[in-house]
Amino acid sequence: MRNALTGMFGIDSPLVGFNRSPGVVAEVTKAGGMGVLAATGYTPEELDAQLTWIEQQVGGRPFGVDVLVPSKTATGDPADYIASLRAQIPDEHRRFVDELLAKYDIPPVPDPELGSERFAASVGPEIVEPLLDVAFSHRISLMANALGPPPPGMLERGRRDGIPIAALVGTPEHAARQLDLGVDLLVAQGTEAGGHTGTIATTVLVPEVVEAAGDVPVLAAGGIASGRQMAAALALGAAGVWCGSVWLSSHEDITSPAVKAKFLGATSSDTVRSPARTGKPARQLRSAWHDEWAGPASPGALPMPLQPMLVTEAWRRIDRAAEQGHAGARELESFFIGQVVGSFAQLRPAAEITREMIDDCREVLRGLGGLAD
Amino acid sequence: MRNALTGMFGIDSPLVGFNRSPGVVAEVTKAGGMGVLAATGYTPEELDAQLTWIEQQVGGRPFGVDVLVPSKTATGDPADYIASLRAQIPDEHRRFVDELLAKYDIPPVPDPELGSERFAASVGPEIVEPLLDVAFSHRISLMANALGPPPPGMLERGRRDGIPIAALVGTPEHAARQLDLGVDLLVAQGTEAGGHTGTIATTVLVPEVVEAAGDVPVLAAGGIASGRQMAAALALGAAGVWCGSVWLSSHEDITSPAVKAKFLGATSSDTVRSPARTGKPARQLRSAWHDEWAGPASPGALPMPLQPMLVTEAWRRIDRAAEQGHAGARELESFFIGQVVGSFAQLRPAAEITREMIDDCREVLRGLGGLAD
Repeated sequence: MRNALTGMFGIDSPLVGFNRSPGVVAEVTKAGGMGVLAATGYTPEELDAQLTWIEQQVGGRPFGVDVLVPSKTATGDPADYIASLRAQIPDEHRRFVDELLAKYDIPPVPDPELGSERFAASVGPEIVEPLLDVAFSHRISLMANALGPPPPGMLERGRRDGIPIAALVGTPEHAARQLDLGVDLLVAQGTEAGGHTGTIATTVLVPEVVEAAGDVPVLAAGGIASGRQMAAALALGAAGVWCGSVWLSSHEDITSPAVKAKFLGATSSDTVRSPARTGKPARQLRSAWHDEWAGPASPGALPMPLQPMLVTEAWRRIDRAAEQGHAGARELESFFIGQVVGSFAQLRPAAEITREMIDDCREVLRGLGGLAD
Repeated sequence: MRNALTGMFGIDSPLVGFNRSPGVVAEVTKAGGMGVLAATGYTPEELDAQLTWIEQQVGGRPFGVDVLVPSKTATGDPADYIASLRAQIPDEHRRFVDELLAKYDIPPVPDPELGSERFAASVGPEIVEPLLDVAFSHRISLMANALGPPPPGMLERGRRDGIPIAALVGTPEHAARQLDLGVDLLVAQGTEAGGHTGTIATTVLVPEVVEAAGDVPVLAAGGIASGRQMAAALALGAAGVWCGSVWLSSHEDITSPAVKAKFLGATSSDTVRSPARTGKPARQLRSAWHDEWAGPASPGALPMPLQPMLVTEAWRRIDRAAEQGHAGARELESFFIGQVVGSFAQLRPAAEITREMIDDCREVLRGLGGLAD
């Protein structure tokens, strides 16, 4: 399957695999696609170690890095960024989270502040530059930004090092803005995708973005976890696919077994697009957590990064208790996932998923060619 | 493009066009697809006249009829059905509608009760049987039901007359139920579709329904208004496409010019899935109407058919005033439409839309076949 995308990166098949697990990234790349590591949540030192490990695995084949740099967030005092953000969280919201955890009888964790500090920092100004420094010091083939326009300097660095810059978009208007800025690749992500996502479905969004993009290649994202869906994306005019959720059904993915078990039992109706975890609408497995935040007692989600600061400790408590079989925690347990979760039948090696998608896609394309006559 | 669907109906191309305008139905059939008339909203006499006219136009080519028979609605007293339903509408809801119309300064219509009575009757038990009688008395090739399981007797009548029965589904679970009942054709409709629709996107839903359906052909609906999108539906495993929204951009469609003008100016972000018009979630052009019903003063939508009974007169007033250029009415003006509304550039003949979709689809399929090598 040779096209503009495979030529751009020197890959066998137009499939990009986005995941936070270095093992998934390496396996997708080795199987003929291109893995992209989600860097958010890692310290610069951790990211450096992960990218070094990936380089050792892939033997010169290409991989990429994705950072989450939202353009609009609550603003803090640069002199004491985390403390100034923490002061913006209303008592009402803290009380709601405390009462929610008490209602479901979730036990505490020994180091409660660790997670919330880290996440807040990871989207704040102090850590983005060091993360980019680390990423650009490695032999990466793609740098992507998951939310809004690329942060200052990213496009210039990409130009300097000859590394294409990609941006995720959820509307044709976002696409036009990114094209004006000069991005090299667009990821048109439909509402059915996991994580931060808009309201327009992949079938509608992809052709709109392709039309706006001219010669800039477009990857389709959202609802793509099989060869059929990959072929459909190519039919819509995409140069390739950007798959995220499907890797949550792989052995190599680092998501906890309790979450993966919930995914395996879920249907395509079991997701919800909610701001209750990050402060921006993101698709997740629907759980009691989302129902409580949508209920009459809810104070409503705070903007990013205040909501993650507020709830990250709660999620560490929920994840740990769920892993130990705690009933209330299992009711609340959730993670980011798209509507394709309904197709998860078992956990499999990431390389097998990659190869099956590519082989099935090729077979579907052949059949479609025959139907034209 | 010969496949299971074209063989089933003896049509040139696997494209079904669903619309309430007899002119659209006839043109789609004549251009090589198959038109399906939405019968809801017509009296039996009107339906009889429409089907007779279509038969005269299509010269023996196939067409179908679709009825809207919801399985769950508010129940009325059979002895005085409409009056018993009317008594169930709370004063609070009547007041909300009156105040909404006053706020936007919408003038009255001379015959206020006409529309509401008719719609309530059209989904009630008295009129469904006569509508089916009329439909089955014509030379139809397909009978479809748009909401829930087919009403009693529809499958038996289809068997007797050799007419395939189709059902629209929005989840794999709905599909399994319909297959158990013995329907001959499934329409898997994604959330991006106009009108009554679920939450699962077409990319995810269609492969799930295809897998559940075995030998029963599946049409993809939702997000399909171009040859690229038609090819994507075939890639997903559909035997063909069921297009609804795209005809709202045709000359033959009977929707008022004021609504069509709003459609031409809309983007794919401008729709909303809301129960505020029919009592069940239906995708429509988002307007001040939906914002008011979602606002803090809203009493919430009533179940079907109480909500249409409550609001049909209001909509007749809004439609009439909007047609006369009334500013408030234009703010409220809306109709059922899918996310493909963003692709409407101009009004065109339905035959031209049909032929272009088919030709473009064939070209895309040829290109995809070449990509496989």
